[in-house]
Amino acid sequence: MSRWEPNARGRLEKAALELYSERGFEQATAAEIAARAGLAERTFFRHFADKREVLFGGAGELQELLVHKVANAPDSLAPIDAVAAALEGLGAMFEQRREFSRQRQSVIAANAELQERELIKLAKLSAAVADVLRRRGVADPAASLAAEAGIAVFKITFQRWIDETNHPDFGQLVRESLAELKAVTAGE
Amino acid sequence: MSRWEPNARGRLEKAALELYSERGFEQATAAEIAARAGLAERTFFRHFADKREVLFGGAGELQELLVHKVANAPDSLAPIDAVAAALEGLGAMFEQRREFSRQRQSVIAANAELQERELIKLAKLSAAVADVLRRRGVADPAASLAAEAGIAVFKITFQRWIDETNHPDFGQLVRESLAELKAVTAGE
Repeated sequence: MSRWEPNARGRLEKAALELYSERGFEQATAAEIAARAGLAERTFFRHFADKREVLFGGAGELQELLVHKVANAPDSLAPIDAVAAALEGLGAMFEQRREFSRQRQSVIAANAELQERELIKLAKLSAAVADVLRRRGVADPAASLAAEAGIAVFKITFQRWIDETNHPDFGQLVRESLAELKAVTAGE
Repeated sequence: MSRWEPNARGRLEKAALELYSERGFEQATAAEIAARAGLAERTFFRHFADKREVLFGGAGELQELLVHKVANAPDSLAPIDAVAAALEGLGAMFEQRREFSRQRQSVIAANAELQERELIKLAKLSAAVADVLRRRGVADPAASLAAEAGIAVFKITFQRWIDETNHPDFGQLVRESLAELKAVTAGE
């Protein structure tokens, strides 16, 4: 029965985001998503545990990638600069999925429960970054503070990257947001 | 039927925290909390909507107080310093409830759902601080970054205040954590 469907996951993601945008996350069903993608409902559940996982299934990969990049940043970098360098390195991944990211952000902004889930994802990301900074020999509270500040830079960067219509470079926005953070915390 | 019970709310809080600590948040029931406090179960529900509200019922008051203090910080202060001054001003409130705060923190640390709720509380606090900074004339992204950095200082301060056994001064810990943040974001 089970047959290979070309790019089933990508088609399901696209159909899901369209339906969440059009009708709201709560209203869309897995059956409708599959139908719009021209696939069977059971194919949806082979790729995603539930509707929410279409939006959050990438969280583990994002965390792994960010942690790997922080771990491998040059030893000479201060903690906050190691985190910023790692964030810049995420640009290539996001650039491939800009339309998905934009739609995803607006679906989440429209739903309180999804916003909570996103906050939890970012808090876990911050905890994971603090952990890898400690493995780089950074003591606490510096490790936690650099991680929290770094994730604040990420949130601001991501929102600007989504909002700006002239398709700005993700890495450039990371550098600008980091500069803003440095000015703000210097008390300027 | 309804009669006034001296300090019923305080007795219920104390009994609830004891039971959450001894048996875990999930296992304790409202009836048991009321019984330990020497009160009727309906008295519990006159004071708290549910078991979780014993832990999070103060969130609104905390947010209101912090926002008020940021709004009234001297105009001459830079955004991050206005937030830090407001955090220092919370010390008096926390000092009155140190044992409650310690027990509350350890109950939350033992329960994933409560940890999520705490993250959401802190994210709302950050959003409220960013709003009041905007009302002070701070532009974005500086308002958001100063709020996020300020709440990071709050989290670190609070944890240190709970953890340290020599009962440190809350305001002093705010100043130390802010100094750490400034060092970290300066790339030191």
